[in-house]
Amino acid sequence: MNQRLNKLIDWMKEEDIDAAFITSPDNVFYLTGFRSEPHERLLGLAVFQEAEPFLICPGMETLDAKNAGWEYEILGYSDTDDTWGLVEKSIKRRVDKIRKWAVEKEHLNLERYEELANRFTGANFVRAEAVLNELRMIKDDKEISLLKKACELADFAVQVGMNEIAAGKTELDLIATIEYEVKKKGVSGMSFDTMVLTGANAALPHGTPGLTKIQKGDLVLFDLGVIFEGYCSDITRTIAYGDISDKQAHIYQTVLQAEEVALNAVKPGVKASELDLTARQIIQDAGYGDYFPHRLGHGLGISVHEYPSMTATNELEIKPGMVFTIEPGIYVPEVAGVRIEDDVYLSENGVETLTKFPKSLQIV
Amino acid sequence: MNQRLNKLIDWMKEEDIDAAFITSPDNVFYLTGFRSEPHERLLGLAVFQEAEPFLICPGMETLDAKNAGWEYEILGYSDTDDTWGLVEKSIKRRVDKIRKWAVEKEHLNLERYEELANRFTGANFVRAEAVLNELRMIKDDKEISLLKKACELADFAVQVGMNEIAAGKTELDLIATIEYEVKKKGVSGMSFDTMVLTGANAALPHGTPGLTKIQKGDLVLFDLGVIFEGYCSDITRTIAYGDISDKQAHIYQTVLQAEEVALNAVKPGVKASELDLTARQIIQDAGYGDYFPHRLGHGLGISVHEYPSMTATNELEIKPGMVFTIEPGIYVPEVAGVRIEDDVYLSENGVETLTKFPKSLQIV
Repeated sequence: MNQRLNKLIDWMKEEDIDAAFITSPDNVFYLTGFRSEPHERLLGLAVFQEAEPFLICPGMETLDAKNAGWEYEILGYSDTDDTWGLVEKSIKRRVDKIRKWAVEKEHLNLERYEELANRFTGANFVRAEAVLNELRMIKDDKEISLLKKACELADFAVQVGMNEIAAGKTELDLIATIEYEVKKKGVSGMSFDTMVLTGANAALPHGTPGLTKIQKGDLVLFDLGVIFEGYCSDITRTIAYGDISDKQAHIYQTVLQAEEVALNAVKPGVKASELDLTARQIIQDAGYGDYFPHRLGHGLGISVHEYPSMTATNELEIKPGMVFTIEPGIYVPEVAGVRIEDDVYLSENGVETLTKFPKSLQIV
Repeated sequence: MNQRLNKLIDWMKEEDIDAAFITSPDNVFYLTGFRSEPHERLLGLAVFQEAEPFLICPGMETLDAKNAGWEYEILGYSDTDDTWGLVEKSIKRRVDKIRKWAVEKEHLNLERYEELANRFTGANFVRAEAVLNELRMIKDDKEISLLKKACELADFAVQVGMNEIAAGKTELDLIATIEYEVKKKGVSGMSFDTMVLTGANAALPHGTPGLTKIQKGDLVLFDLGVIFEGYCSDITRTIAYGDISDKQAHIYQTVLQAEEVALNAVKPGVKASELDLTARQIIQDAGYGDYFPHRLGHGLGISVHEYPSMTATNELEIKPGMVFTIEPGIYVPEVAGVRIEDDVYLSENGVETLTKFPKSLQIV
């Protein structure tokens, strides 16, 4: 049994949990090495204190699961099989009675919850995230090397985008070129829909890229990431096209200062909230307090947004092994939208910024 | 109030449902016109029999929601707000007591369900999908015109991919070029990760594209779709590079026949199961029964996989207004993987195939 599964089982024993039923593709991948995106079909990993675990997945993926190294039972089902009947039988073969389940409460939907609750009556359900978030938060050496590679590719992608900035090109033109060049390098997917926003669009922190053309005097915001062997990067850079106004420049320098001061504050024992508030204070002092409407950042790994959330109210202490984003931003309607985001790794030896694209104002 | 919301409310009155809380981005878009992907953050649409509906979304998206035409209350929250406290207060301002909720049981996660169940004790929960799936299944004229455009772009994308087939190119090379050309046309996103699989890889119905190079004698499988103004297309074509073996050709012709016979069987009142079994019978008769491990198809619209599921056991009758895929496939390890998929629209006037790329064997 792999170390990750063993840690899950140790926790189940401590907490007196009879069975865990894990359904999120990311956690199944973390625990088994098998990456699957079954959409609305069921993917599940059942884990017990003593009995052997099993996987349930669409029948056409059983070979993939074996090839990924899963050594225990795999229940492959067809689209007409009674999937939950299979799950029930396989569990009841292994354990007499379930009094306490661990499930991912942020992932398991109500329909599936009701299947479990109705087939195994009288059981309690606790959050599997309690242990899985903690385990995934601390990255091992192999994970760090994959994240580094994903970040290198994100740096490359920003460079590609910057090289493409020219009058008349649209946001979607730049995205097309970025993703083309990244995929030519062997990347199978982006961490999320690539974001290129120019001018007024960039002042919407969650705007949608479209056919807006880049013009002289625009700030062009790139927010993107790649998935490299299952691990995500996430970078934001804001680049000037030609001369920008003093007001735009002031916003840029404020965000840059906030980002760097927060980055410099990262050390073992500092709280997530302290990092958020450090950056927020600088933005507030510069007069833009109302224009930084989101958290400082988020954990990063197999998921592009994972535990922990770096907010002003999260008292979690930063520990060696963590990888997370620092991404303050200021969005003043009609004036400028600027965000600068790095992926940060705290090791036993100190802080390392995995995204390395320059942060001083780049002008095309 | 728009017609879709009115239909939802009519259903709530019939079923004596006090409140609906809709959380899936696709259904919120369908009911409000507001498209949001808030990841782990909460997006919710609360609807009542008499009181005004409201939306809750991340604060930085409230302007987008207004711009999308939402006329009622919008609760924008920050990352440190007590989101569920806001929901509770806004609901309790509108109704005294909730005895019966409608929620999307396939989408609402257990954590959110517990928030509702604990803040409004003693209520029952029923499936909002019961009405939303039925409403979304029948497309209106505007939806059909968007789907047509999405399908045209999918045809174009296959043509781009076919033009790129050449010895030594990798699966990812083709994907990069396809997505580049499609995005240059103004498409904001693909319906799902574009799939190009060549040779033995295509014999895995859910393989992952990588750095495998195309070789003479390969069948190259393209499965892709684009999102056009919120509506998805989904096409599969399998194209020969050079001469293929008799066995490969036989598999191709069998899939083609299965696809066309199922397509010709589409008419009002035919059951989904009949369509599936029609195609399945042809594949079985040709000796490949074990190699068609998935359903015939699925509904298509705002989601790339939506209601209904076209399986051998679904007794649902096909009705005018429906759009769905027909996509039989045969996957013989080491020999060939072939799938042919069309998007099909049954109108009052008959059947229309929205994807029009040729289906006779194309040889590069």
